Amino acid sequence: MSKDTFHAAVKNALIKEGWQITHDPFPIVYGNVNMLIDLGAETLIAAENSQEKIAVEIKSFLPQASAISEFHTALGQYINYRRALSVKEAERNLYLAVPIIAYNTFFQLEFPKLMIEENSVKLIIYNPEEEALVQWKN
Amino acid sequence: MSKDTFHAAVKNALIKEGWQITHDPFPIVYGNVNMLIDLGAETLIAAENSQEKIAVEIKSFLPQASAISEFHTALGQYINYRRALSVKEAERNLYLAVPIIAYNTFFQLEFPKLMIEENSVKLIIYNPEEEALVQWKN
Repeated sequence: MSKDTFHAAVKNALIKEGWQITHDPFPIVYGNVNMLIDLGAETLIAAENSQEKIAVEIKSFLPQASAISEFHTALGQYINYRRALSVKEAERNLYLAVPIIAYNTFFQLEFPKLMIEENSVKLIIYNPEEEALVQWKN
Repeated sequence: MSKDTFHAAVKNALIKEGWQITHDPFPIVYGNVNMLIDLGAETLIAAENSQEKIAVEIKSFLPQASAISEFHTALGQYINYRRALSVKEAERNLYLAVPIIAYNTFFQLEFPKLMIEENSVKLIIYNPEEEALVQWKN
């Protein structure tokens, strides 16, 4: 499965649960910094339903890649995007979407668990094969 | 200039100022997470002098690359490394080393300045051509 497949899986899973995808990619601009120029920004989307607006940073955590490397980037993006959103659209919640396989392995290790908790990272756990959302963790 | 050149420039600049390079790369292990597996970890070194122990995350911020992408990863690494160090070696200070050209441009924008300040990121600004340290910012 390619990164594009994971991206499509999360989008389709959100749509199945009644979300409308409003932006793909979702642009965030803060002063002179355009986060769309970010090479990883194609993984950021926005969605809404009647109750809530969200932004979702989609990560694939492919087993053959380095999980800790992807985690560094994911955490940095999350903290930066969240801060920029807090100014632009304080009511929109940011989620980091991770596949169930990565959640059940790497994300159960002591260090990632600690960092997710300490940095108040909200998670969406998804099943890429079934294009389904497994769990939301706030 | 390649990334290796920037890495060597920071090491030589530290040595010129009386620091001893003790680890290159500097391994950080926390539980079952080995941050040396990190693809970017070859840029983390450790040094000490008679007064202080430091770890330095060396970034090149090459002008042709996306500064915001490199900034996401740099911030995530910094926050993760600092947290792991706080448990293993609380007395060692972590610095993010950035070239003077990037410091005078990207790092003067409102957003990076805000994030560096809010996340208490300590900086070393270096001149890669002269292999010299320009400024320490705590």
